[in-house]
Amino acid sequence: MGTLVLLRHGESVWNAEGLFTGWVDVDLSATGEEEARRGGKLLREADLRPDIVHTSLLKRAIRTASLALEEADLHWLPVRRTWRLNERHYGALQGKDKAQTREEYGDEQFMVWRRSYDTPPPPIADGDTYSQAGDRRYAQLPEELMPRTECLADVVDRMLPYWYDEIVPDLAAGRTVLVAAHGNSLRALVKHLDGIDDATISGLNIPTGIPLVYELNDDFTPRKSGGEYLDPEAAKAAIEAVKNQGKK
Amino acid sequence: MGTLVLLRHGESVWNAEGLFTGWVDVDLSATGEEEARRGGKLLREADLRPDIVHTSLLKRAIRTASLALEEADLHWLPVRRTWRLNERHYGALQGKDKAQTREEYGDEQFMVWRRSYDTPPPPIADGDTYSQAGDRRYAQLPEELMPRTECLADVVDRMLPYWYDEIVPDLAAGRTVLVAAHGNSLRALVKHLDGIDDATISGLNIPTGIPLVYELNDDFTPRKSGGEYLDPEAAKAAIEAVKNQGKK
Repeated sequence: MGTLVLLRHGESVWNAEGLFTGWVDVDLSATGEEEARRGGKLLREADLRPDIVHTSLLKRAIRTASLALEEADLHWLPVRRTWRLNERHYGALQGKDKAQTREEYGDEQFMVWRRSYDTPPPPIADGDTYSQAGDRRYAQLPEELMPRTECLADVVDRMLPYWYDEIVPDLAAGRTVLVAAHGNSLRALVKHLDGIDDATISGLNIPTGIPLVYELNDDFTPRKSGGEYLDPEAAKAAIEAVKNQGKK
Repeated sequence: MGTLVLLRHGESVWNAEGLFTGWVDVDLSATGEEEARRGGKLLREADLRPDIVHTSLLKRAIRTASLALEEADLHWLPVRRTWRLNERHYGALQGKDKAQTREEYGDEQFMVWRRSYDTPPPPIADGDTYSQAGDRRYAQLPEELMPRTECLADVVDRMLPYWYDEIVPDLAAGRTVLVAAHGNSLRALVKHLDGIDDATISGLNIPTGIPLVYELNDDFTPRKSGGEYLDPEAAKAAIEAVKNQGKK
């Protein structure tokens, strides 16, 4: 019943600088562009050809999809974009230095904001430099849906309608679907797919630029829990590296 | 009633080499990439922000749209792709050298193939290196719709349903619509918009990488016949250059 391929965007400029990004529309770094191309190369080498692509509204995911598809010579694939696949909104932390935030608020508060399932950071003010209030791309999003901060539970809630309404029908048609998105929107999806509980999901990291492939059953559950990375060795090494983010 | 922005893709590798391209999926040259970025810069400077983008299924148009939108920081725009905006299928001429073809068949035959409204070149054989038979991107196109050669009249016929069904509704909603496509699919559209007759259209050239803007009336006719180029001087110079293509 279809194949789902998840691709987390490559390193962004702010990932490299250790800043909280969230909905701020930061571009890929040169390393991130390379990671995106590697993702496309892995698809090509595995002869895994998506039929359709879904991305967030953020350029680091959009460009990751574009660069990967260029590498696989699949420019022409239909692509759909949605705010529902955006990264978690990091609230007032957006634009802040991770290590500095950790120092200022302490390890415990830092880890709650980063990894608690249901505690969001403080909301961002509309006048903040890093607020998305007034951003034209969200103009059609009703006020009550526009986040000013999110925890992972919020991301699950706003991502799932897109999964059910837009992605599942493609999978039901037997298609191979590529989702190019973000650490937390993909964690939200993996949590749903693999039935991971609220406590355990905090320890799950998805590496950047390495396609994660789920073959699905008729009820859209994974044939193999956790799916399979196209480059398992690189995925393992990258997961370790993510765990160490924000450490001094 | 909406604004229509037409953008012809920048120079492709085969444009630069003087080969007939048609449906062969040739990439942009470095010059073509620059033209695409210039197109985006012109949009940005004119503060002309599309709401939606339509492209063909060919990478030179797709990448032109991507590069222009990146330059205008509009990566996130919804984009739709269709074979109906593809370049004219050049039949058996695809992959052939323009100057050599002119020499071999004479000026008259050459100009008939390039510019006659209703005489297509000979059809391409399915086994030809430059045939699109079996190309996965056209897998859902019924056999009777899949061209093996086209004249401009054929392009008008297959392009118009997309205009009426997919582009006009966006314009009717008051949107600004960007169409990134090809010399002949755009000539077909301009012929329709400006009511140009079959003889006169052969003399019309659309320059690459310079957005052509049509403000539309309620009946989707242009407020100003011929529209307006965002850089009229550059457009004029480029139109002259196109006229000289294929000359020794």
